[in-house]
Amino acid sequence: MTIPSTNFNPPFNITRASHLILTAKDLAASRDFYTEVIGLVVSDEDANTIYFRGVEERGHHSLTLKRTTAAPACECIGMHVFSEEDLDKAKFHFDRGGVPAKFVEVPFQARTLRFSDGMGAPVDLCATMETRPRLHVEVNTHKGARALRMDHYQVLVPDVLAAAKFYMDLGFRISDYLVIGGTDHVIGTFLYRKNNPWDIVFLHRSGPQFHHCGYVVESLYDLIRGLDTAGNVGFGESIEHGPGRHGLSHSYYTYLRDPDGHRTELLLPGIQITDRYDEPVACELDPNSTGNRWGLPPPRSWFEEASEFAGVAPKHPAVEGDPLTLEKYLVSKSWRRAPDTLRKSA
Amino acid sequence: MTIPSTNFNPPFNITRASHLILTAKDLAASRDFYTEVIGLVVSDEDANTIYFRGVEERGHHSLTLKRTTAAPACECIGMHVFSEEDLDKAKFHFDRGGVPAKFVEVPFQARTLRFSDGMGAPVDLCATMETRPRLHVEVNTHKGARALRMDHYQVLVPDVLAAAKFYMDLGFRISDYLVIGGTDHVIGTFLYRKNNPWDIVFLHRSGPQFHHCGYVVESLYDLIRGLDTAGNVGFGESIEHGPGRHGLSHSYYTYLRDPDGHRTELLLPGIQITDRYDEPVACELDPNSTGNRWGLPPPRSWFEEASEFAGVAPKHPAVEGDPLTLEKYLVSKSWRRAPDTLRKSA
Amino acid sequence: MTIPSTNFNPPFNITRASHLILTAKDLAASRDFYTEVIGLVVSDEDANTIYFRGVEERGHHSLTLKRTTAAPACECIGMHVFSEEDLDKAKFHFDRGGVPAKFVEVPFQARTLRFSDGMGAPVDLCATMETRPRLHVEVNTHKGARALRMDHYQVLVPDVLAAAKFYMDLGFRISDYLVIGGTDHVIGTFLYRKNNPWDIVFLHRSGPQFHHCGYVVESLYDLIRGLDTAGNVGFGESIEHGPGRHGLSHSYYTYLRDPDGHRTELLLPGIQITDRYDEPVACELDPNSTGNRWGLPPPRSWFEEASEFAGVAPKHPAVEGDPLTLEKYLVSKSWRRAPDTLRKSA
Amino acid sequence: MTIPSTNFNPPFNITRASHLILTAKDLAASRDFYTEVIGLVVSDEDANTIYFRGVEERGHHSLTLKRTTAAPACECIGMHVFSEEDLDKAKFHFDRGGVPAKFVEVPFQARTLRFSDGMGAPVDLCATMETRPRLHVEVNTHKGARALRMDHYQVLVPDVLAAAKFYMDLGFRISDYLVIGGTDHVIGTFLYRKNNPWDIVFLHRSGPQFHHCGYVVESLYDLIRGLDTAGNVGFGESIEHGPGRHGLSHSYYTYLRDPDGHRTELLLPGIQITDRYDEPVACELDPNSTGNRWGLPPPRSWFEEASEFAGVAPKHPAVEGDPLTLEKYLVSKSWRRAPDTLRKSA
Repeated sequence: MTIPSTNFNPPFNITRASHLILTAKDLAASRDFYTEVIGLVVSDEDANTIYFRGVEERGHHSLTLKRTTAAPACECIGMHVFSEEDLDKAKFHFDRGGVPAKFVEVPFQARTLRFSDGMGAPVDLCATMETRPRLHVEVNTHKGARALRMDHYQVLVPDVLAAAKFYMDLGFRISDYLVIGGTDHVIGTFLYRKNNPWDIVFLHRSGPQFHHCGYVVESLYDLIRGLDTAGNVGFGESIEHGPGRHGLSHSYYTYLRDPDGHRTELLLPGIQITDRYDEPVACELDPNSTGNRWGLPPPRSWFEEASEFAGVAPKHPAVEGDPLTLEKYLVSKSWRRAPDTLRKSA
Repeated sequence: MTIPSTNFNPPFNITRASHLILTAKDLAASRDFYTEVIGLVVSDEDANTIYFRGVEERGHHSLTLKRTTAAPACECIGMHVFSEEDLDKAKFHFDRGGVPAKFVEVPFQARTLRFSDGMGAPVDLCATMETRPRLHVEVNTHKGARALRMDHYQVLVPDVLAAAKFYMDLGFRISDYLVIGGTDHVIGTFLYRKNNPWDIVFLHRSGPQFHHCGYVVESLYDLIRGLDTAGNVGFGESIEHGPGRHGLSHSYYTYLRDPDGHRTELLLPGIQITDRYDEPVACELDPNSTGNRWGLPPPRSWFEEASEFAGVAPKHPAVEGDPLTLEKYLVSKSWRRAPDTLRKSA
Repeated sequence: MTIPSTNFNPPFNITRASHLILTAKDLAASRDFYTEVIGLVVSDEDANTIYFRGVEERGHHSLTLKRTTAAPACECIGMHVFSEEDLDKAKFHFDRGGVPAKFVEVPFQARTLRFSDGMGAPVDLCATMETRPRLHVEVNTHKGARALRMDHYQVLVPDVLAAAKFYMDLGFRISDYLVIGGTDHVIGTFLYRKNNPWDIVFLHRSGPQFHHCGYVVESLYDLIRGLDTAGNVGFGESIEHGPGRHGLSHSYYTYLRDPDGHRTELLLPGIQITDRYDEPVACELDPNSTGNRWGLPPPRSWFEEASEFAGVAPKHPAVEGDPLTLEKYLVSKSWRRAPDTLRKSA
Repeated sequence: MTIPSTNFNPPFNITRASHLILTAKDLAASRDFYTEVIGLVVSDEDANTIYFRGVEERGHHSLTLKRTTAAPACECIGMHVFSEEDLDKAKFHFDRGGVPAKFVEVPFQARTLRFSDGMGAPVDLCATMETRPRLHVEVNTHKGARALRMDHYQVLVPDVLAAAKFYMDLGFRISDYLVIGGTDHVIGTFLYRKNNPWDIVFLHRSGPQFHHCGYVVESLYDLIRGLDTAGNVGFGESIEHGPGRHGLSHSYYTYLRDPDGHRTELLLPGIQITDRYDEPVACELDPNSTGNRWGLPPPRSWFEEASEFAGVAPKHPAVEGDPLTLEKYLVSKSWRRAPDTLRKSA
C-alpha cells in the first residue's frame, strides 16, 4: 500500500467543498427539517426546488433540494474553484484526460462545469454564484442548530486510494487515513483543499454513494439546540448516531437523517491545517474497537445506508468490510466486567 | 391507581439526598474513574476507603468507596436532615412504626441513623459532617467533568407507588411520574425535598437495587470534557448511554459505568421546583417510544443491570416490564422511511 | 460588629424571592427589552400592565410592569410563602410587632399580604398564583437570553446589618457578607431561603432603593445570546457592567438597564447551599480592589443609580461609602507596569 | 479614497500569520501568564528563551519570548509561506523592489527570510519549522483558555491604506475596512490569506507598533476558563477589555496584557472567507459609538498603548484619531434616559 502524493501544482484551483443537490419526495417535510432543525436559511424556492444556505454563508446556496417522484438521490456534489479561468483550465484538463465534463446551467450560479470523478460521482464546479448577506450576526433570527456553513462530503467508494489519487492529482491533500490495524488495508481517506481536515472523505464500501454532508455549528450548545428542536418539532427519531467524538478526534459529531433518509452531520469547527509540514497521519483502526474516542459505535444503518448518485450504479469493493456496528457491540458488550478488563479495553 | 399524597407536616426534616457508600474491588481503578473522569475530589483516603466530594460541596464526602472482595454493592444511600434534633425525631418515628433504625458510627460524620426504608434499602441520615472548602472557584485545579455536587439517587423497586408512599409520608413531594400510556400502570415516581425535581427516583423493576446516583455538572462543555477525558485515560467504553435529553425534559444526561459496574449519571442543573402549586405531573410513556426527547433509547444493560444493596435480596415485581431497549429499537428502526412516517413517529 | 443569627423556627415560612412590580414610562419599549433581550414570556397584558415569567416558571408572573407617568419606581418586591396558613401567621406576626401589613388584591395571585420591611421597602407575600405551563423545553420558541427564572433582589440600605436582622428573624440565612478589609464595617449581606446563596442582598448605600433583580440563565451561551440580541435590536447600550465573575465567585454576571433605568442581572445558576454547616462566610473587600474575581469594576452608575421604592424616601447611611468605581480604576490603572507589580496587585 | 486591489497572482505564496517574537523582562512571570491563563504549551525553553505553541499547533512555536533588560518590544511578527521555493521568490521580489530582506537563523525553523514591510515592521517568513504533536485532543492536560492556535496580528500604522497596499501586492485580501462615518477616512483595514477574515489588521495610529496577536479558543467556556484562571493565579487585573463582541461582529473578544504589557486577544473562531465573491465590506464607524456590537468601549490604554517594534521608531499619522474611549463614554453616558433616547442610541 502506498498513499498517493499530492500534486502541488494542480491544473486548476479548487478551493473548497461548497454546494450539493439532493432530491426529495416531500419538499415541505424536508424544508422543515433543514430550516427548523439544522437551521439553514432559504435563499430562494419555487414549487419544485428549495435553495438553502448556512447562516454564515455569503454564497446563495450550499444545499439545493429538488422534488422527485423517484427514489431520493444525490444529483451531484459541488465545489468552488477560485476563478472563472479555473473553469476553463478544468475543462481543458478533463477533456485531455478523457474525464466526462460539460458546462451546465444551474440557477443562481455563474458558469458551472459538471464532471464525473474517477469513481463516477457527478461533481459541479463553479467560481461564483449570486450572493446574499451573511446572517451569522442575526442570532435572534436563527433556528435549531444555527448551521454556519457546509463543510465537507463523505462518499462511499469501493477503492478509497483510487478515489484519493483522483483528487490528489487535482491538488487535494490528505489529512488522515484509516488503516485496519496490523494490515496495510486503507479503508478511509480524508482529503482537503481549504484550511481544515476535510473537503471530501472516502470510506471503503460499495460506491460511489453519497454518505453525508457536514455542516459546521458554532458550539455544543448550538448542536444540542438543534437536537432539542428536532425532539420538539417531530424529528426526534431523525438522530441516527451521536453526539460523540470522532476517533480521529478532530471534532464532535451528530448524524441525522432527513425525511428522505439523506444524512447530515452536524460538527464543530475542525482544526486548522495548512502548512507544508502537515503530512498525512495514519490512524490504525482496531477492528474490535468502536473507532470513536468515546460514544457507542454507529448502528448498522450508518455503515450500510447511503444515497445513490442519480443514475450511477454502485459497485462492490473487492473485499467487503466488517465494521463494528452498534448491534454487534451491544451483543458482546458487558459493563459487568472486572476493572482490569474495562481499563485495557480502551 | 391513586398517587399518594405528601405529608406536609413530616415527622422530621429531610433536606436532600447527600451521600452514599459503594463497595469496589479495585480502589485504584475506581479512584481514577471518579477523580479523572467525573472530576470528584478526594477528601480523605486510607488503604480500604476513599471519601470523595464534588468541587462545590462543603460537606466532607458525597461518595464513599470501600474495598471489597465480594460482589460490588451499594452499602447504603444517605440523606441530610436539617438538625440533630431531626435525628431523634426520626428514631422515635421509625421505632414507633416498626421501621428498623439504629445509630451507627460513620467516619467524618456526626451522629448517623441508619434505617431500612419500606423496600428494604438501607438509608443513612445525618445532620452534619466535617466540612472542607468549596473548590468550585478553583477551576484551574478541576479535572474531567468537574462534577459540582451529588444530586439524586435512582432505585429500582417492584412497587414504585409503595416506595413513593413511604417517602411522601416523610415529606417528599412528587415532581413527575411515569404511566404506561393508555393504562393506569405507574412505572416511575420522581421525588424531591430540595428545590429541584429529584432526590430519589423509583423505577419499576426487581428491587430494591441501586440504579445510579446523579452528579450535577455546570455546562455541556464540562460534561463533554468528562467524556473526552474518559476516552483519553482508558474509560471510553464506560459510557453506557447518552448524551441525550430526558423525556421528562428537565435535563441532559450521560450514564457511565465505573470499574465495578456501578452507574453514575452526569446531568445539568434541573429546574427549580418549590411552590405549593407545583403539583405532580403525569407523563404518559408510549411503550413503542424511546421515552427520550431525543437520543437513542438506553441499551438493555441500563434496564437490567443494577447494584444490589449489600445483604438485601431483590424481589420481582408482580408484572415484569418490557421497555424499549436500544437493541429492540435497532431491529425495528429504519431511517429509509417515507417522510410522513418519520414525522408521525415523533 | 456582630452578625445577626438566624431564627431557625421562624413565625412563618417564606420559601423564595419570586415576583416584583416595576413602573415604566413606555411599556412597548420595555416589553421589547424583557421579551427580546432577557427572553421572558408574556403571560398576560393589557393597556397598562404586562405580566412576564421566565421560560421555566410555572407561576403566572415574576415581573409585572405597570405604566406610569411619574418617575419610574419599584412598587414592591415579592416573595412566596409555602401555604395560605403562612399568610395568616405572617399577618399575626407583623401586627404583633407593629410592622405595617395588609392584605391587598393583586391580579392572578391568591391572597397577598403586603408589608413594609424594617427598612421601609414594600414586600408582597403570597402562597399561590395562577399557573402557566413551564416552557423551558420549548427551546425553539425561546428568545434572547432565555431567562429561566427570577432568582433574587439586591436592595440598597443605609444599614445592612439591621436589614439582615429583620429578615433573619423571619428565617433567612446569610451565605456571605462583605467587610471592608481591616475593619469590622460590614457593607453587604447576602441572605437566602431557597437552596442557593441569594434571595435578597443588601448593600450599604442610601436606601431603601431597589438595585436589581437577578434572572438565572442556563449557560454562558444563553447569556451571550441575550447580549448579541441586545446589540441587534437596539439595546446594545443597555449593558452597564460585565460579563464578569463576582468576587464572591458564586456566579457570572452581566447587568443591563431597561428603558426606564431599572437594572436586571443575568446570572448563571449559583451553588447549592442548604446544610446546617453552611455557616456565613466573611469576605474581606480590599478598598483598592475591583471586588471582582476578574472583570473591570462597575461604573459609578452601578453604585449610585437605583430605583426608588414608590413613595419611600431613601435615607443616607451614617457613613457614605467610597467604592472603587470603574472611573477611579481607569485613572489609576496602568498596564505598563513591571511584572512583579502586576502579579502582586491581584 | 480608493481601497487598493489584491494582486491575485502574487510573487510568492504567503499562507498565514503564524509566529512572533516578543521580549520580556521577567520570563518566569510571562511563562506563567501564557501557560496558565492563555493555555499555551512550552515546546522548548532555555535560560533566555521560551517557545510556546497552541494546543492544536503542529508547528514548534507560534510565540517566542526572549529575555530582555531593555524596554519590552516586539522583535518581529512572522508568517508562513507555502514552500521553500516561495522564500527564494520572496527574496528576489524584495531585492528587486528595494525592500530590506535577508536570511536569518532562527532556532527550530528552517530557512527564514526577515524583511521590513512598507511601514517598517520586521516580518519573518519561513515555510517549515520543526513539528510537535498536536495536543488538542489531550483535553485533560490543558490549562486556562486552552488556546488552540495563533490567528492574526493587529499593527498600528499611520497610514492604513498604504499598509494594506503593501500586503495586497503580496496577495492579501481585505475582508472589512473601517471608515469614519460620513467621511472617506479609512482608519482600519483587515487583511487575510488563510480562510478567515484576519491575518493582519491595521489600525490608524502612530506606528508601526505591535498592538496584539490573537489566539483562537474553542468556546466561550474556554475563554471564561482562562479568565477565571487569571483571577485565581494572580492575573485578574491583566484583563483590559472585554468580553464583548466586535462591531464587525465576526467574533467575540477579550484582551489581556501580559506582565510586560504586551497584549493578547482571545477570540472565538471567525467566519470562513475564501470565495472570489467575498468582496471587501465597508463598515462605517459612528465616532460617537462604541464601535462594538455590545460591550463597553475599550479604555484609553487599548488605543494608546502598544509594543514598539525593536529598533523601529513609530511615526505619527497626518491626523491623530479621536476614538471613543471608555473614559469618554463613561463621562457622557447615563442610563437614566428616556426610553426613546436609549433605543435610538443603539
